[in-house]
Amino acid sequence: MNATDPVSNLAALIRCPSVTPAEGGALSLLDNLLLPLGFAVERMVATEDGTPDVENLYARLGTDGPHLMFAGHTDVVPVGDEASWSHPPFAAEIAGGEMYGRGAVDMKGGIACFVAAIARHIEKHGKPQGSVSFLITGDEEGPSINGTSKLLEWAAAKGERWDACVVGEPTNPNQLGDMIKIGRRGSLSGRITVHGVQGHAAYPHLADNPIRGMLQLTQALMDPPFDHGTDNFQPSNLEVTTIDTGNAATNVIPARATASFNIRFNDTWTAETLRAEIIRRLDAAAADGALRPDRTPVNYEIVWADRPSHVFLTRNNALISSLSGAVAEVTGLEPKLSTTGGTSDARFIKDYCPVVEFGLVGQTMHMVDERVAVADLETLTRIYETFIERWFGHAATE
Amino acid sequence: MNATDPVSNLAALIRCPSVTPAEGGALSLLDNLLLPLGFAVERMVATEDGTPDVENLYARLGTDGPHLMFAGHTDVVPVGDEASWSHPPFAAEIAGGEMYGRGAVDMKGGIACFVAAIARHIEKHGKPQGSVSFLITGDEEGPSINGTSKLLEWAAAKGERWDACVVGEPTNPNQLGDMIKIGRRGSLSGRITVHGVQGHAAYPHLADNPIRGMLQLTQALMDPPFDHGTDNFQPSNLEVTTIDTGNAATNVIPARATASFNIRFNDTWTAETLRAEIIRRLDAAAADGALRPDRTPVNYEIVWADRPSHVFLTRNNALISSLSGAVAEVTGLEPKLSTTGGTSDARFIKDYCPVVEFGLVGQTMHMVDERVAVADLETLTRIYETFIERWFGHAATE
Repeated sequence: MNATDPVSNLAALIRCPSVTPAEGGALSLLDNLLLPLGFAVERMVATEDGTPDVENLYARLGTDGPHLMFAGHTDVVPVGDEASWSHPPFAAEIAGGEMYGRGAVDMKGGIACFVAAIARHIEKHGKPQGSVSFLITGDEEGPSINGTSKLLEWAAAKGERWDACVVGEPTNPNQLGDMIKIGRRGSLSGRITVHGVQGHAAYPHLADNPIRGMLQLTQALMDPPFDHGTDNFQPSNLEVTTIDTGNAATNVIPARATASFNIRFNDTWTAETLRAEIIRRLDAAAADGALRPDRTPVNYEIVWADRPSHVFLTRNNALISSLSGAVAEVTGLEPKLSTTGGTSDARFIKDYCPVVEFGLVGQTMHMVDERVAVADLETLTRIYETFIERWFGHAATE
Repeated sequence: MNATDPVSNLAALIRCPSVTPAEGGALSLLDNLLLPLGFAVERMVATEDGTPDVENLYARLGTDGPHLMFAGHTDVVPVGDEASWSHPPFAAEIAGGEMYGRGAVDMKGGIACFVAAIARHIEKHGKPQGSVSFLITGDEEGPSINGTSKLLEWAAAKGERWDACVVGEPTNPNQLGDMIKIGRRGSLSGRITVHGVQGHAAYPHLADNPIRGMLQLTQALMDPPFDHGTDNFQPSNLEVTTIDTGNAATNVIPARATASFNIRFNDTWTAETLRAEIIRRLDAAAADGALRPDRTPVNYEIVWADRPSHVFLTRNNALISSLSGAVAEVTGLEPKLSTTGGTSDARFIKDYCPVVEFGLVGQTMHMVDERVAVADLETLTRIYETFIERWFGHAATE
């Protein structure tokens, strides 16, 4: 196969039905693309009780530093209502200048372009003066337990070290060149239960309505704001995602109420300081008793969700300026350096090396008729190719 | 049967397993007790689509005024966990001076005593100078659709008119003589739905979390208080009885949230003025937008529950003084004239004649081991008998 064409690379990848946790042939295809380019390709199956086994791939070209990693995933989210698609989700049909298919932008497209970029680089300049590797998982859209995190541990245990990483997730809101992600907010979730005393609605003094306490607690979580943002980050934001009581009887005061919340937090906080602040707010609201006639403290408990995502910000100039310079050179746009949006596997990579994210336009990700402008595939390939040149050139002058 | 003994009357009634909507033999028994006393007894079956047919009974002694009604129900709530009862729930066993059985206090006991009271009155004084009637339903503990309300309509359509009514519900919190109910708060229920826009928790500006709006609306319903009570009534009180979202995904902002509330209201309000006040509060809270970053009005709708219970207060001196005088004469206690507690069938009767409620001690009602002190049955019978004398005497002097 000729790996220099991102369009044929992507078409082949889309035709692998790799809905998490299925490998679907996508990693084998990548193996076949990278092997002729000189990459040493390894496949690694990650396992954990209670989760499906997941296949992952690690491929390295070169043995010396500096070492540039491209990271991503070949797994895709389910197709949803297949009948609603204009073109079959695993056919890679092109219509109106766009290629349709699940994973087109999230993120088989990014992989297809980076493969093409390194193939072109080798064709023009030979192997880079250093190493390039692909760290590709099949568990990014799933629980992310048997994916990037274990693959990094496994590779690091074998002695792999990296100097910089680009994750090929679709980072551009509107057009290619809009946005590079240089960090991510953290994410922390918890579940609150308020215990009351069940009773008849006509005798509230004999009962203790947990909804009164829950209103006080959730109000305290949402107001005032946790912060007003920082130089590089939006304000931290908490959303109460569900409140539930499940009481069908209008004349009964329920025994308890539950609520879950999720907070996306910036570098004002760590997960630890944020937990402490949330407990402080809840305890203060529980003691206040404004809505509770008897003014007794609200009887509540909180359970934190496992594994918060930690906030991070990448400040590595060689990495950021090589990438933003490449974007500007190819597209003429000054990409915004952003920390917005959800979490990504970059949260695992940041513990090993500086990491940024740049890929296609994300508008159709996870939707019916996910698709990519064919012209964007060529543009992104040229950006990645330029970035590779700049990054190794930058490294050589240091 | 000799109807003058309330203990044997009650034992026979308890042995009829008349869990709503089953007649269980209870009305036939009453028929057999009242017929020998000279009552004209009629049975009336009420029907309505979607509900079980229910048997009811109306019995009248005399044809002239003044006309005193005793109202109540022979149906009982289910026994719950029968294995937990110390004595079988339909056996009327006596132990430690108490008779055990479902309905012992709520309210076969009240009926047993009133039957004994009128039987004794007839034995001593002959028939009252006027009329006494029993209006007894088998649908008080159920939906109350085929019960007192239809029975009253049916009797009124035949020309029946009443001057006063005593409902024999258990009104005493601690001991016989504590409390006469002279009115009831109203009850109004509604269900609020807040519509938001579903989205990812990391992109709250693209979503609209309905929980934010729901917190504002429910807060406005609970604070400030609707009133501070009146001469005869407790403060009106609103309880939010359930809030539900049903969103299992921590990283998703839900599309909508629902809440139900129930308000027990006093004579500061009618159901109509209260609905208007609630709408006023909800609209003000919806427009406020304190917890909503974009400050758009909360998109909500409200559905009112069918058939609010209207507040009422009985001010008929002949009725109240006859009853409280009888209580004082027999027990030495000054009964509190109260409007506390839940709704009762008195809410239907108040549209036909002045109505008060007085019966046994309610502590074990609806519970496992529902039971009544045997001594209380004799005391209540004497209270009712004294009341009958006083009420007809009072009426005769007017």
